[in-house]
Amino acid sequence: MDLTAALTSGAVRVIDLTAPLTAQTPILELPEPWVNTVPFELTEVAHFDERGPAWHCNVFTTGEHTGTHLDAPKHWITGKDGEDVSQIPPEKLVAPAVVVDVSDEVALNPDFLLEPAHLRAWEVEHGAITEPSWLVLRTGWAARADDAVAFLNNAEDGPHTPGPSTEAARFVAEHPHIIGMAVETVGTDAGQAGSFDPPYPGHNLLLGAGKYGLTQLRNLESLPTRGAVLIAAPLPIVGGTASPARVLALVPTGA
Amino acid sequence: MDLTAALTSGAVRVIDLTAPLTAQTPILELPEPWVNTVPFELTEVAHFDERGPAWHCNVFTTGEHTGTHLDAPKHWITGKDGEDVSQIPPEKLVAPAVVVDVSDEVALNPDFLLEPAHLRAWEVEHGAITEPSWLVLRTGWAARADDAVAFLNNAEDGPHTPGPSTEAARFVAEHPHIIGMAVETVGTDAGQAGSFDPPYPGHNLLLGAGKYGLTQLRNLESLPTRGAVLIAAPLPIVGGTASPARVLALVPTGA
Ligand SMILES: [Mn+2]
Ligand SMILES: [Mn+2]
Repeated sequence: MDLTAALTSGAVRVIDLTAPLTAQTPILELPEPWVNTVPFELTEVAHFDERGPAWHCNVFTTGEHTGTHLDAPKHWITGKDGEDVSQIPPEKLVAPAVVVDVSDEVALNPDFLLEPAHLRAWEVEHGAITEPSWLVLRTGWAARADDAVAFLNNAEDGPHTPGPSTEAARFVAEHPHIIGMAVETVGTDAGQAGSFDPPYPGHNLLLGAGKYGLTQLRNLESLPTRGAVLIAAPLPIVGGTASPARVLALVPTGA
Repeated sequence: MDLTAALTSGAVRVIDLTAPLTAQTPILELPEPWVNTVPFELTEVAHFDERGPAWHCNVFTTGEHTGTHLDAPKHWITGKDGEDVSQIPPEKLVAPAVVVDVSDEVALNPDFLLEPAHLRAWEVEHGAITEPSWLVLRTGWAARADDAVAFLNNAEDGPHTPGPSTEAARFVAEHPHIIGMAVETVGTDAGQAGSFDPPYPGHNLLLGAGKYGLTQLRNLESLPTRGAVLIAAPLPIVGGTASPARVLALVPTGA
């Protein structure tokens, strides 16, 4: 297995699945009275000046849950005794991606809910998931990612964005081989999931089962249905409930 | 090339090379009058309470150059028109690692300087570097990583830590295939490099040549001399001169 040759020969390409981090990176907006996370903010420390003649550097403030990020079990009350984001075993951060494409359905209905039937049909068509894998939900939502209003899609009655139904979240939570769920939207739950039972089942059930969430991905159209490797690289924040993450994919060019 | 099988069969292991991020993570201490970066700081936003009944989340403040981090060309005045940390091509973030082990020399002399002769001797012994690769300088310094005083090793006359000489930095900067230099110390330059000509040649020459620095790695003893793939995953901070990074390695178990 010559990994280095695979990379240098071009047999494997590296694809960036991460949203760029700026002060405009969309963040989740929770209803009152809950406290919201903060946008990304970059502040200059030195810039080829009296503070540092030869260098430019900055500090930044961000939410753990800002932009493309990974949710650890400890984020949710159901997983509070589980791993923080620094404790996730490295082999779970680099693992096969299985891509479920529901972008046609989402184009017709922004409130589209993934159901267990979609996942069962996917396993019938593409084969059962028998090895530790990330479930990547391709919704096409990243087409809205540079327009925060369209991306968050908030209305009087809350956000309208796709995600798993309670039963699909349960299917993923109970699946013996799925490591976590990766999505294009601002969070792993559907926009209306606050009214589900339990509320936010993508968080409640997956994190409660020791699984992970990965959000705000883009470029998923570059991934094959199977055969790519997902690299989810959160910062190892000790005690962190999540972290902004760089997410890359290794895609075999013959795939 | 079945990457996914290589991972799931155990033919490739994932090794974490990253220092954990806490308020105690050592940071570079610059002499007066220059302005220093800031330590990592985590602040609670909600914790299963009235701010968020079912969830726990935090915000954090950090320097771009805090902990394990990647320096982009734009960080230094010689590279100021070059890439910011969000502009680095993904294929440079996942590339072969070539490991130069000078830990025996550093054990005898914390001010050890890597010289071009060491790199030429390495290429004679292990073969020329003919494909895009990260130069990983193994100094054993990570043994001090959990003790900030021993790790920074500051004295009246500045820090005493190993790094490249000016000529070694020039060798790396001019090498046609080296992507960047990765180290165990707090920065890519030797502790005494402020007095070199040019000052901080590991920054001045490498970043000026469009190359990268990667710092504060650990677990380098798990890497073979050749055959591993380095994954350097900084956050894509638009306008960023650097970013804290998760750094992983893919190591063939047969290597
Ligand atoms: Mn989150
Ligand atoms: Mn730096």
